[in-house]
Amino acid sequence: MAELELIAAIRAALGAPGERVVRGSGDDAAVVRARPFAVTSIDTVAEGVHFDMETCSPADAGHRALATALSDLAAMGAQAGEAYVSLALPEGFADGDALELARGMAALAERTGTTIAGGDVVRAGALVIAVSVTGWAERERDLVGRDGAQPGDLVGVTGTLGAAGAGFHLLSDPNAASDRVDGGVAAALVARHLRPTPRLAAGRALAAAGATAMIDLSDGLATDGRHLARASRVALEIDATALPIAPGVAEVARAAAGRGADGGASRGDEGSALAARRLAVSAGEDYELLFTIPPERWDAAAAAVDVPLTRLGSALGGEGLRFTGPDAADLDAVRGYEHL
Amino acid sequence: MAELELIAAIRAALGAPGERVVRGSGDDAAVVRARPFAVTSIDTVAEGVHFDMETCSPADAGHRALATALSDLAAMGAQAGEAYVSLALPEGFADGDALELARGMAALAERTGTTIAGGDVVRAGALVIAVSVTGWAERERDLVGRDGAQPGDLVGVTGTLGAAGAGFHLLSDPNAASDRVDGGVAAALVARHLRPTPRLAAGRALAAAGATAMIDLSDGLATDGRHLARASRVALEIDATALPIAPGVAEVARAAAGRGADGGASRGDEGSALAARRLAVSAGEDYELLFTIPPERWDAAAAAVDVPLTRLGSALGGEGLRFTGPDAADLDAVRGYEHL
Repeated sequence: MAELELIAAIRAALGAPGERVVRGSGDDAAVVRARPFAVTSIDTVAEGVHFDMETCSPADAGHRALATALSDLAAMGAQAGEAYVSLALPEGFADGDALELARGMAALAERTGTTIAGGDVVRAGALVIAVSVTGWAERERDLVGRDGAQPGDLVGVTGTLGAAGAGFHLLSDPNAASDRVDGGVAAALVARHLRPTPRLAAGRALAAAGATAMIDLSDGLATDGRHLARASRVALEIDATALPIAPGVAEVARAAAGRGADGGASRGDEGSALAARRLAVSAGEDYELLFTIPPERWDAAAAAVDVPLTRLGSALGGEGLRFTGPDAADLDAVRGYEHL
Repeated sequence: MAELELIAAIRAALGAPGERVVRGSGDDAAVVRARPFAVTSIDTVAEGVHFDMETCSPADAGHRALATALSDLAAMGAQAGEAYVSLALPEGFADGDALELARGMAALAERTGTTIAGGDVVRAGALVIAVSVTGWAERERDLVGRDGAQPGDLVGVTGTLGAAGAGFHLLSDPNAASDRVDGGVAAALVARHLRPTPRLAAGRALAAAGATAMIDLSDGLATDGRHLARASRVALEIDATALPIAPGVAEVARAAAGRGADGGASRGDEGSALAARRLAVSAGEDYELLFTIPPERWDAAAAAVDVPLTRLGSALGGEGLRFTGPDAADLDAVRGYEHL
């Protein structure tokens, strides 16, 4: 396929623009009818660093690149709008794979009401996908930053934790936990790693219900929780026994620990629970939302969101993040991803 | 320097956000007070493809990456707003170089009234810089696409052509034209290649003066002119003798032609003029604006812009791009960049 044909084929794969889009790709720039506040984030995934084409299909890579960017909009409570995609393809990257990548991205875009309104495709020394996403809000107070948590707020999280980390372990060694984890459960864990779901609807519902601060768990609760605590100047106190560990995570974490991946900390069922908690707070890419909310708003929030919420603890005076429960000292020492 | 420190240092280098920016980097996403129409483009430059660290400083690379993106806003007549930067750095890329790159970008941002409102820095297998820029307009009719040219319009161009292409030749072989081109002229040509200027003020002035179609010359007049002609369904007829060739381009083009770079087409002064025209229409990256405008608006446009305008020819019925003048057949066969 000639290069201009590839670009045309990718454009065709991206589908029709939304009604806000006055001019789509094909001009020098896209033109979009704005709403009062634009919320924008750019995210980059690189092969060999964030994903590996040995275990990740081109469609997975496209999905992940858009999902990680949209997750930032979810964490602000913004409505997804447009995405702009930069695709740097190495020599030898097959046109068919580039198209599959675009289709994986387009499928998630359609499901989330996002228009891929522009892009750039270039040759480069490595596969690098950068996605800039813009969401919209009517009023500034409809959005939630990291900095609004107040002492006395409850700390909550959407969905379940540890699944993406466990899925990553399973991808690296599919047989590691095959005697302990059902095939369907294992597949679900792998899917959480390869195809994360940005919590867009939950983020908007939490914002509307009165969440005071919010962050998406891209780098793990241990790291992202500290970001939120620092920005809000509060201490987050989290009950380790309340962590909503995804099914199968304990078994995978224990198998990984048995291979020395967590320093051999685990023995028996108690060790298995600790290994699961360590994985759940240290491994990133679950893309769940960590939030704070006044106690009297909790029930309304739980009723409004489309995923289960778990009450993890409270925001207090002070700063930082600390755990309570039997493994507290152990978990306090854990850190999530602190990448460049 | 630790990785989080590098990110903090880059942030510090980027300067203070503009007054439209409600939340800058440091949260999950930036929040910007919008104007009615958002104009967005994403552009990518990769080392080894778009620039070479042998001849291009980190600050040049940062400048170029932002300039190419802003040039798309110039071509729409939009006012520059915010930039979001994805920086993929290979292992071994020095922290000091990353900072210099950010500072080169920040200097251009400040000069153009652009806020670098967000970014992402990752490790990758190659140096790839993607920049998404958003500009703003009050009314849709304040913007100019590629598709509005009408038969009878004049065709014009800002500034001078061929400089970036000649600068590229000089970078590849600094001694090639040293006996024909003054050192100051040579330095100016190289600067046009390394540090292109997005024609933001000229783009807005041309839009306000009534330009009917506009495109930035990133891929060369031969290619970009055809893009505009196709989008507008007109033929562009361009007088080859009117092309505003930058000083020194003829000498460099002739030296390059003497080395066979243009197929040895040139002999003597006449050959030198043809070689210059070939370079001026085929080499991209001048980032001048090609536009169409009704004849009665020309004088107002020329008075309003901050760079000289040159009348190249006319838009006619039909489609495509053709030259008139002594070298017409030769130039009609030339193409600019048609890259992926």
